[in-house]
Amino acid sequence: MPHNIARGVFLFDTPPKIEGFAAIVGEKEGQGPLGDFFDEVVTDSHFGQKTWEQAESKFQLEAVSLAVRKANLTKEDIDIICAGDLINQCTGSSYGLRQLEIPFFGLYGACSTMAESLIAASLFVDSGAAERAAAVTSSHFSTAERQFRAPLSYGGQRTPTAQWTCTASGAVTITAEKGDISVYGCCVGKIADMDITDISNMGAAMAPAAMGVLCRYFEATNSSPTDFDHIVTGDLGILGSKLLVELMEKQGYDISAVHMDCGEMMFNPEEQDSHCGGSGCGCAASVLCGYFLPRLQRGELKKILFTATGALMSAMSVQQGESIPTIAHLVELRSK
Amino acid sequence: MPHNIARGVFLFDTPPKIEGFAAIVGEKEGQGPLGDFFDEVVTDSHFGQKTWEQAESKFQLEAVSLAVRKANLTKEDIDIICAGDLINQCTGSSYGLRQLEIPFFGLYGACSTMAESLIAASLFVDSGAAERAAAVTSSHFSTAERQFRAPLSYGGQRTPTAQWTCTASGAVTITAEKGDISVYGCCVGKIADMDITDISNMGAAMAPAAMGVLCRYFEATNSSPTDFDHIVTGDLGILGSKLLVELMEKQGYDISAVHMDCGEMMFNPEEQDSHCGGSGCGCAASVLCGYFLPRLQRGELKKILFTATGALMSAMSVQQGESIPTIAHLVELRSK
Repeated sequence: MPHNIARGVFLFDTPPKIEGFAAIVGEKEGQGPLGDFFDEVVTDSHFGQKTWEQAESKFQLEAVSLAVRKANLTKEDIDIICAGDLINQCTGSSYGLRQLEIPFFGLYGACSTMAESLIAASLFVDSGAAERAAAVTSSHFSTAERQFRAPLSYGGQRTPTAQWTCTASGAVTITAEKGDISVYGCCVGKIADMDITDISNMGAAMAPAAMGVLCRYFEATNSSPTDFDHIVTGDLGILGSKLLVELMEKQGYDISAVHMDCGEMMFNPEEQDSHCGGSGCGCAASVLCGYFLPRLQRGELKKILFTATGALMSAMSVQQGESIPTIAHLVELRSK
Repeated sequence: MPHNIARGVFLFDTPPKIEGFAAIVGEKEGQGPLGDFFDEVVTDSHFGQKTWEQAESKFQLEAVSLAVRKANLTKEDIDIICAGDLINQCTGSSYGLRQLEIPFFGLYGACSTMAESLIAASLFVDSGAAERAAAVTSSHFSTAERQFRAPLSYGGQRTPTAQWTCTASGAVTITAEKGDISVYGCCVGKIADMDITDISNMGAAMAPAAMGVLCRYFEATNSSPTDFDHIVTGDLGILGSKLLVELMEKQGYDISAVHMDCGEMMFNPEEQDSHCGGSGCGCAASVLCGYFLPRLQRGELKKILFTATGALMSAMSVQQGESIPTIAHLVELRSK
């Protein structure tokens, strides 16, 4: 059972376990510094499908299916699947996962979705509402660019603060029983809005949300940055990560030695024209499932905070001149 | 604690309670047969805001705030708010609720969101992860029409099977302690896709999802339609409701005597040009909170099944020729 230790913060008495996990990425992500860590690199941006939207759906379906197989399960073993993505009305998830016939719990947390779906899946399992649950999310460079920014064929120049939406998906299965990685605690994020309106500067918009959720968790659990091997943020990118370290310092927390950002880790900015780094729901999801979970499983890492960050605007809200509300959700993961 | 009785189906040992609830609707909804039941009828479709999107956000904010006040609470008493809507990237919820500074759990279930958010909020509270949670959703005729169909000023003619997206919001607060209405059980829906591609015939697309979740719940709980005062569906409308009754009959369940549909109830089709009835996340939410919850609270109803239904397509998936996947989530509500 979870117990509530502060507003929106809860720890599990008998932490649920991550049993299976998988990460599938696109070609550019496969060519980055983490390329060797992913389960599969798909070089065809259409993944054999007619549209990029269908391709993104297939990324999600394949990631879940692989996570299930790696845990020696079948899809019938999963009671509930928690999923969401960036495409309007989350069709990446609903179209991708419909054929699985698993009870489906749709989420929207923008790029924070991997942390949010981990929270939901852990809660279903730990409370006893489900025996096993899965969490998955995805993003695709081409579906996101044309939806949020401009048609790809327009060939617009990207600003230095821009990030590159990753073509990627990550999935996990959660159970109460076996597994070497436990979900120890969770913090549900509050919406932060610092009046930033530049959709090519998402890192700056999202850093305050990450700061908020980290401070709330440290305070509630009476912990500090050095208690963790890594504090992993979702996709703040290079600029947003710098900002987060500064913001945390002002709050009295020095995270500089332990902080890592999935967006910053995904690409080599000098060789890959990735500007401030990777972004998209699939960025944090694939780096978590490809890089961090295996290290936790092998015991190389003992404790990490996984804090995926999301920007909650739409193309229309930006056109209407609205600022960008952001959110970050947090899960503490521990090695057995 | 909930306990899992079948895949995706769980009952609460000590059912969480609905403490406060509120329903706010637009002018047309206020003129319908249920007009007198809603807490507030807002005749200005802009609700004093510059855009319809801002108006929808305000509907959500006002509905939550009123539900909180009616339960003699303040927003600080709510640990987590579970919310979603139809607007791209769910900005109705994120922009509407950001100023509340309540930990925010974003959902996407299209028009099934009121049932999904009730499930999430009940789970947070019953598991001990939160002391109090809120669930809210909304829809707005003008934000939905231009996003999913055509610009309003285009003046397109609507087909006979079309439904009218309601301008409405409904909100509840959930607690473990006091309240006259309990959330007894839940069933998380599976995605159903019967290859329907006509977005002006959503009732037909969604009826199989409602059938699926009802049959799964009856079977898991060993219950039958006559065990309930009402089986309430979200927004199947006139045609979808007829279809559901037929589909259920083929499964061996006669629901004709107890079935009611929020979409069918919302308007008077002969006087209000509403064709097959109301739709939108706010339809089921406002009819639940305005009409059914007060009757449960007064003990006039003892047991109902609330089955909100959602169509998970996007404007782009429809343009790409995809069929419409649908979902329905279910909660059993009981009077104390």
